[in-house]
Amino acid sequence: MTSTCRMLQRCFAVFVLLVLASVARAQTPLPSWNDGPSRQAILEFVAAVTQEGGKDYVAPADRIAVFDNDGTLWSEQPLYFQLIFALDQVKVMAPKHPEWAEEQPFKAAIEGDRQALAAAGTEGLLKIVGATHTNMTTGAFSDEVKQWVKTAHHPRFKQPYTSLIYAPMRELLDYLRGNGFKTYIVSGGEVEFMRAWAQEVYGIPPEQVIGTTFVTEFQMQDGKPVLMRTPKLDYNDDGPGKPVSINKFIGRQPIFAFGNSDGDLQMLQWTAAGSGKRFAGLVHHTDAKREWAYDRDSKIGRLDKALDEATNKGWVIVDMAKEWKRVYAFENQ
Amino acid sequence: MTSTCRMLQRCFAVFVLLVLASVARAQTPLPSWNDGPSRQAILEFVAAVTQEGGKDYVAPADRIAVFDNDGTLWSEQPLYFQLIFALDQVKVMAPKHPEWAEEQPFKAAIEGDRQALAAAGTEGLLKIVGATHTNMTTGAFSDEVKQWVKTAHHPRFKQPYTSLIYAPMRELLDYLRGNGFKTYIVSGGEVEFMRAWAQEVYGIPPEQVIGTTFVTEFQMQDGKPVLMRTPKLDYNDDGPGKPVSINKFIGRQPIFAFGNSDGDLQMLQWTAAGSGKRFAGLVHHTDAKREWAYDRDSKIGRLDKALDEATNKGWVIVDMAKEWKRVYAFENQ
Repeated sequence: MTSTCRMLQRCFAVFVLLVLASVARAQTPLPSWNDGPSRQAILEFVAAVTQEGGKDYVAPADRIAVFDNDGTLWSEQPLYFQLIFALDQVKVMAPKHPEWAEEQPFKAAIEGDRQALAAAGTEGLLKIVGATHTNMTTGAFSDEVKQWVKTAHHPRFKQPYTSLIYAPMRELLDYLRGNGFKTYIVSGGEVEFMRAWAQEVYGIPPEQVIGTTFVTEFQMQDGKPVLMRTPKLDYNDDGPGKPVSINKFIGRQPIFAFGNSDGDLQMLQWTAAGSGKRFAGLVHHTDAKREWAYDRDSKIGRLDKALDEATNKGWVIVDMAKEWKRVYAFENQ
Repeated sequence: MTSTCRMLQRCFAVFVLLVLASVARAQTPLPSWNDGPSRQAILEFVAAVTQEGGKDYVAPADRIAVFDNDGTLWSEQPLYFQLIFALDQVKVMAPKHPEWAEEQPFKAAIEGDRQALAAAGTEGLLKIVGATHTNMTTGAFSDEVKQWVKTAHHPRFKQPYTSLIYAPMRELLDYLRGNGFKTYIVSGGEVEFMRAWAQEVYGIPPEQVIGTTFVTEFQMQDGKPVLMRTPKLDYNDDGPGKPVSINKFIGRQPIFAFGNSDGDLQMLQWTAAGSGKRFAGLVHHTDAKREWAYDRDSKIGRLDKALDEATNKGWVIVDMAKEWKRVYAFENQ
């Protein structure tokens, strides 16, 4: 055997090892999860419901997985990102609304006056949401959201907001879909806001995004039909509204649900109540260093009753600080 | 060559021919359609939007097809089948409601008194729908519908109601799905009524059935969560309500729509208004012999404005009598 031959052989062996290692890595599910109790519970659940002939087998069509969005799939601090979008939009829209320069709460939003904004309270915030989210067509609103997603940056991480999705949860979505699950978002967020980027960011198509809605009207504009978003609230997809909307939109009881706050409690209860093996999970924000730490006393994403019930019922509670190798994908860049 | 051999050879040749003919038949799309203008328009449309690299190509994810149900996928005479179900249910439920024996319109429904029913008008009918469709859990209602579908028979054809689906339209659903389309029902009928049998009868899963809804409430009963159907109307999925619900549930503009009445006009307009190649079709009930003949003056499934607009815009209008080889699958049995 010549030395060239031997070298080629060695090269080939190294190449094969590299390929095998890469295949093994690709095949290790949920790589951003430490091998803790939550990851184990997920793997065991998926193995059980996908094993044909097994006692817990669930046909693919019934493998419905529902996820809350804010605080479950992406961050929600220091403010729900959709509210940050609304505040940003006031500035974008201000040139067409000269009256806002003197009108609260718009003046405060334009000037970034946090004190005045806080003083305007929920009512003020709803005014801002109404003005920035409605009285336009569905298409126009979607374009606004897409533009914002492309250009806005999170104040703490200086990253686009869509980079603040949780890498472990993004992997979980893929893992479930790879095992025949259909993944849905069921969020208190407004549905068109999420649909504008959910496909690209989560791989979740618009028809699998369920959320809060404004009353939308069919209108003819210059002989062309449009759907006009009105400021009237149509449906508040939160708390007990979640199982109701799951039934309305999906018509099947999910077998897998993930949330992070009391607003997800009824969705988790409804999922856990189905006959057969069920998975109910909570993301617990325990990581002040890499993300935020909050639960029972938080104004945003309060986790109190649902934490008690999850503990009592043995639902999966993900300790973010301990169980996630990384929170965001950009941490490893 | 022995004669036995020759015989075997001939047998084999005949067998091959039979197999080939059967394959050819299976491959001929829409066999219950005569080769008229509507069938041609469907085939041409599907060929155009599925040809990769072609100017009209549409990616599979955007191949959304929406169908009205009553009068489009199944018959709707002499009365919407859901109303017949409601009237039948009054009799089923009567033993638990002794007061109905003397209370209109229930008395009329129990006694089959058409005159008294007609006198009770829309208000009376709504009372009957409310009493038979609500104040029960989603699961209980679904069970009632399934039981009715199994046992009730259409007065004219003496067939289960689900046998009164149109064979040509059932083939069309399969043909579209075989070409990567996602098929939806968008109907004025109540959603849970349709979901109880749509998967089995049309191959359309519950999450692709959109319809009129009652307000449903999340409740705890003996510590177990249930969804309770209340008598309050939630959404009337008819007329301009159809494009709105399409946007709400699907979040994409369909490229293909089929209806049969003025209640489908806005859905057809919304579909046709999308950029790129679009298909808008109407089933025209022209066949008094095999089905029913009605359009502009009918109380059920009135087709007047939509017929004018379809004519003006060159939408496909299916002349049932001329274009369908058979209306129902049982005709050939």
